[in-house]
Amino acid sequence: MDPLYLSYSQANGVPQESKLATYMNHQSSSPTSSLNQSMVALTLDQPVSIKKENVGGTTYFYPTSSGETGPLAEEVPSTTPVPTVVMPNFTVYTGSPTHVSSLKEKSSTSGFYVSEELRMEQMHRNALILAQPDPEQYPDLPAEVEHYRDLCPLKPVAAAPANKTQLMGYSASSYKATNVKTGIRYCLQRIHGYRLPNTKCMAVVDMWKQLEHSNVVQLRDVFTTKAFGDYSIIFVYDYHPGAETLTMKHFQQCEPVNGYTDPFSADPNAPRPYSHQKNKILLQQQSNLLPESVIWNYIIQLTAGLRVIHAAGLACRTLDPNTIILSGRSHLRINSVAIPDVLTCDSTATNPHHLTSHCQQEDLTSLGKLVLALACRSLVACNRENIQTSLDLVARAYSPDLRNLIMYLLTNSQQPQQPKSVTDLMPMIGARFYTQLDAVQARADMLENELAKELENGRLCRLLVKLGTVNERPELNMDQAWSETGDRYMLKLFRDYVFHQVTEDGSPWVDMSHVVQCLNKLDAGVSDKICLMSRDGQSILVVSYAELKHCLEQSFSEILSAATKQDIS
Amino acid sequence: MDPLYLSYSQANGVPQESKLATYMNHQSSSPTSSLNQSMVALTLDQPVSIKKENVGGTTYFYPTSSGETGPLAEEVPSTTPVPTVVMPNFTVYTGSPTHVSSLKEKSSTSGFYVSEELRMEQMHRNALILAQPDPEQYPDLPAEVEHYRDLCPLKPVAAAPANKTQLMGYSASSYKATNVKTGIRYCLQRIHGYRLPNTKCMAVVDMWKQLEHSNVVQLRDVFTTKAFGDYSIIFVYDYHPGAETLTMKHFQQCEPVNGYTDPFSADPNAPRPYSHQKNKILLQQQSNLLPESVIWNYIIQLTAGLRVIHAAGLACRTLDPNTIILSGRSHLRINSVAIPDVLTCDSTATNPHHLTSHCQQEDLTSLGKLVLALACRSLVACNRENIQTSLDLVARAYSPDLRNLIMYLLTNSQQPQQPKSVTDLMPMIGARFYTQLDAVQARADMLENELAKELENGRLCRLLVKLGTVNERPELNMDQAWSETGDRYMLKLFRDYVFHQVTEDGSPWVDMSHVVQCLNKLDAGVSDKICLMSRDGQSILVVSYAELKHCLEQSFSEILSAATKQDIS
Repeated sequence: MDPLYLSYSQANGVPQESKLATYMNHQSSSPTSSLNQSMVALTLDQPVSIKKENVGGTTYFYPTSSGETGPLAEEVPSTTPVPTVVMPNFTVYTGSPTHVSSLKEKSSTSGFYVSEELRMEQMHRNALILAQPDPEQYPDLPAEVEHYRDLCPLKPVAAAPANKTQLMGYSASSYKATNVKTGIRYCLQRIHGYRLPNTKCMAVVDMWKQLEHSNVVQLRDVFTTKAFGDYSIIFVYDYHPGAETLTMKHFQQCEPVNGYTDPFSADPNAPRPYSHQKNKILLQQQSNLLPESVIWNYIIQLTAGLRVIHAAGLACRTLDPNTIILSGRSHLRINSVAIPDVLTCDSTATNPHHLTSHCQQEDLTSLGKLVLALACRSLVACNRENIQTSLDLVARAYSPDLRNLIMYLLTNSQQPQQPKSVTDLMPMIGARFYTQLDAVQARADMLENELAKELENGRLCRLLVKLGTVNERPELNMDQAWSETGDRYMLKLFRDYVFHQVTEDGSPWVDMSHVVQCLNKLDAGVSDKICLMSRDGQSILVVSYAELKHCLEQSFSEILSAATKQDIS
Repeated sequence: MDPLYLSYSQANGVPQESKLATYMNHQSSSPTSSLNQSMVALTLDQPVSIKKENVGGTTYFYPTSSGETGPLAEEVPSTTPVPTVVMPNFTVYTGSPTHVSSLKEKSSTSGFYVSEELRMEQMHRNALILAQPDPEQYPDLPAEVEHYRDLCPLKPVAAAPANKTQLMGYSASSYKATNVKTGIRYCLQRIHGYRLPNTKCMAVVDMWKQLEHSNVVQLRDVFTTKAFGDYSIIFVYDYHPGAETLTMKHFQQCEPVNGYTDPFSADPNAPRPYSHQKNKILLQQQSNLLPESVIWNYIIQLTAGLRVIHAAGLACRTLDPNTIILSGRSHLRINSVAIPDVLTCDSTATNPHHLTSHCQQEDLTSLGKLVLALACRSLVACNRENIQTSLDLVARAYSPDLRNLIMYLLTNSQQPQQPKSVTDLMPMIGARFYTQLDAVQARADMLENELAKELENGRLCRLLVKLGTVNERPELNMDQAWSETGDRYMLKLFRDYVFHQVTEDGSPWVDMSHVVQCLNKLDAGVSDKICLMSRDGQSILVVSYAELKHCLEQSFSEILSAATKQDIS
């Protein structure tokens, strides 16, 4: 939780509608005659006609009549013909659209900044991307492997020593690493002690590299290295920070729920959840099983991935809960592709294509076992001795579609000449495609709205930096009075107007909506006028935001040209 | 185009990798010993132990030893076990992940702000939401209708006078309007001169109000009003700014392409596009037909909408290109729902359910006509005399699946006791569901990444406002020297350090990455130390960001308590 965020919004008591109020104030205060300006551009950028007068070193600005009128009409986006309405000449976030607000993040505390939950997710992801290895724990990490550096072991130290796991009989480790040239992080999977017999398998590696799909972790590169002090082969994949394998997500949390954990527990007297329950959902809840919708969500994503893999003439070869990762909100990806192809590469094989179609059939069997394991929430569910009990559990707890899908995948085809195909599963998935589409579409809509909120913040932030660069600058071009004279004097008074408002008796008036409104009007350069008073109260300036915008651009470009001049000389 | 955005980033010559560089500088400059701090929280928020010393009205701060060490380890998100790596104690955007960068917006000019295209889309949408009617064009708009105000006509003035269109024999208009209580904009559809005979149809209105789906425009309210000077009935829907009807999008742009426009043009000698072409895609291009993927995209969305409508025991009753709207990137929604139900409400009907299933069958026929019209890009394609030619065109230019789908929908069922169903279409859509899912998922990923870029802006913006509220404040609690002494003096020098850096010879050094880095470190309160120099160069302070953060929080809370005190007294 960002303490700044909370303290600020709570302490000020800024209501959630403050930006809205800002807009409404603007509307009600602007005279009706300004509606006759017909259409104006989204941001006014034409030079404003201004009369200057220098009094005692301070320049005062008066707008001439041409500065008051004549906004440009031709800059309006012309895609939608709305010829008889007046478009605003400023831009603010206009609040969540109604079709999104009903799906909005529950924990959203504010309508004007991105929801706290999304923010924390993203921050956690960023932190993981920036994480560094503890040099005491990993003293022997190589500084650079090919063109990757900043290696950081990814898997937690588990039972296996030194971050190693077994993969097809080989030790394997995975690291986060940064590409030296691009600065982008990748995931390196290292197979220890493996010497590539020949480069024949690189053809299949190239096929994998070209396969792009949202449910497959993208393979980027494969190379051999001696940087770890042995012969290793490295597979470079996209890095998905915070991703968990299906094993971690669903097959490790064995907290007992209602005294019941594993349907295959050794205790024969343990209560069997499916003995007297009729309501399947209740049964799923009571026995700590996954909701059916979650399983179908995974099936749709897994079949989507398998479909493109098989269509590309490839096969997964190892589809198990360890090679499938989940990131974000249940976004599933098939990981570690191409590793089995390389490790089992048989350079003497006469018909590699025949082997592929055999492996594709095995992929489908693996998928069936995986779905059965997920449905029973147990990795031993698909052992030969358990399989009938498992299928009974599925029949009791889930829909016939799910059972049929598993049966289809696990049953050997009667006609070997008619191989099974992943597309045969589509009728069993059925209208669940629509549910999935609706969910993903709703998430995209929600993200687009969250983006709309923060979009304007970046603009205001850049504007504040610009203002800060000009205000109170000690000197420019040897002129120590630079920030106190001319354009800059007006901007100084404007800064006071924005940030240092006080009530009638002199106590501070802190209002975020006032700041946002002022900055938005400055950025748009509207013709509204404000009264700026000098600190001694002796002089009062009436200026429009358009003039202030001109002042800021003028002053900032003076600084920039002074900075650039230096570079050239 | 936001001029500020461009001028700033171009003029400064900030490279696209500037934030990355910021991170890298930070990494390389931090001593290795700091890695031993084990894990620290994402933002440090504990009170820092600081020794104060007042010299001539100015307070100087020295960190004590306890302020240097002991960051909190227990605040780290504990979901992913990564026990042996060091998490960063700051947060910055870490660059586009590789799985997104391949799908990124083409026009994206910067890796650190949201892409220009998305920004313009959102700004255009905001502008439409804020648009106001020209009072000269619409002098007789009511100020308020029920609890909606700020009415603004939505449809452009076309052939029909005064924004009216015909709907089932009634004149109809649509307006954007603002809900008085919530400030949210809705779309009002007004049927002119209609008196509700009885309230019996309100039951079906309630059913529509409860139907929520991403492919149906949500009905929010229905009421009658005399505010327009007649008896009108108003249907309140969600407002989708910038949405176009299918008619506007696909059946009005009749620019001739290759001399060929309408396949049903009156001129019998006009070149027929499908005469000698074998390549279907080439044929689609040459004859200005829609790509097949676009049509399937619409079919999937329309069937998704129809599916939930029919499942809810309702029927569209008018499914034509005028009642279907497209917003954003081809997001399709069925509009004007419930209007036909109300207008054709027969209070004497004995079996309304029977009528509904009849209307559902008609919905499917309408869908078939609509798809045929889209495929031929002509509204007359489904006229009886053209239908064979149209189907021939579909067969030549598109896949058999599309033709079969149209045939199924347009052919009368042989067994009236077996009504057609929208789910029967699923096998014809087939694996295109996967394509659609992949596309929507990719868009969600892209939006999430764009959001990640802008996420930190709101935080930095609030931090700048906080700093601006403290810096250079003329007086607080009658103390005119408040902003020049104590905590505030340090913050003043820090402000100079952030914004007024100069090179060795005194010329300005303007660098956005420096500003972002300083603000991020301030917000995180890291233990890095910086050297602040007074303007006269006489005194130099060495302070950590943690101390500066403490100063800012202290000073800002003083202002807040002064502001609150006033409210109470």
